[in-house]
Amino acid sequence: MRVLGIDPGLTRCGMGVVEGSMGRPLSLVDVNVLRTSADLPVPQRLVTIERGVEAWIEEHAPDAVAIERVFARSDVSTVMGTAQASGVAMVVAARRGLPIALHTPSEVKAAVSGNGRADKAQVGAMVTRILRLDAMPKPADAADALALAITHIWRGGAQARIDAAVAAARQHVRSRS
Amino acid sequence: MRVLGIDPGLTRCGMGVVEGSMGRPLSLVDVNVLRTSADLPVPQRLVTIERGVEAWIEEHAPDAVAIERVFARSDVSTVMGTAQASGVAMVVAARRGLPIALHTPSEVKAAVSGNGRADKAQVGAMVTRILRLDAMPKPADAADALALAITHIWRGGAQARIDAAVAAARQHVRSRS
Repeated sequence: MRVLGIDPGLTRCGMGVVEGSMGRPLSLVDVNVLRTSADLPVPQRLVTIERGVEAWIEEHAPDAVAIERVFARSDVSTVMGTAQASGVAMVVAARRGLPIALHTPSEVKAAVSGNGRADKAQVGAMVTRILRLDAMPKPADAADALALAITHIWRGGAQARIDAAVAAARQHVRSRS
Repeated sequence: MRVLGIDPGLTRCGMGVVEGSMGRPLSLVDVNVLRTSADLPVPQRLVTIERGVEAWIEEHAPDAVAIERVFARSDVSTVMGTAQASGVAMVVAARRGLPIALHTPSEVKAAVSGNGRADKAQVGAMVTRILRLDAMPKPADAADALALAITHIWRGGAQARIDAAVAAARQHVRSRS
């Protein structure tokens, strides 16, 4: 499966496309960071993000989109812009009927590094290793977008295994009753 | 001028259209509250809001859009959804090239009631009076959207008068030099 990971932001919006499936090596398809100038009005910046995400989906035809779940964190100066950018990214994906999953930063850190409190450098290093890249994707928003896509594929795989186990258990119960 | 005021929200998104100009009686064109169910995934709710705002702009052809400026307030449970809805509303208006203005809740309260700390009932009562309505628009999101549109027309008028005064002063300086 091909997954587009989006690390939303008004100033920098990371987009990373990863292909692969659970238990097999994953590969990088493309990665990019959309930037919009803080000198522009917010609506115009959001339209730039909308067009950028749309063009990226058009080009890479992902099977699913994984977006970072935004929380009202302590950094209130950026959180509103991040929420607005994530809303726009969701709308672009949803109106094309693409499945959308939200993963929290802790879930992403835990998935790629085994540690829900990993720092940016650890996440970047693990993304580099998992995708067998020559260098760490930069800036951090690029690595974070790829980490989201990786998380989505791995969690999807885990979820599929859990679903299969549940189905098997039900089958077992049913065959015994 | 005709202004669409939007009080953004995931659960209830108020939309009110007001026509008029500074110093003349304003009139209500239409008012509505878009509702989306909390049972639906956020991306789907945002698409419903996008379509609703688009249909409303299509129908009423406003000259400008006034949207409530969202702050990271204390009510963190709703603020992210509000920010996402406002982002979507901004994108819909901006991609049509409509002028967009953001007004804070205090600015709106001060504009319609003379008191930046007015409560919902006071704002509703003033909107009813200003637009000469038979009854207070309900729910509060409807009245708030109309208050935003009224604020926009009145602030626009004030801004135009300030601009004219500044231009006149410059003219005066120039004619003396």
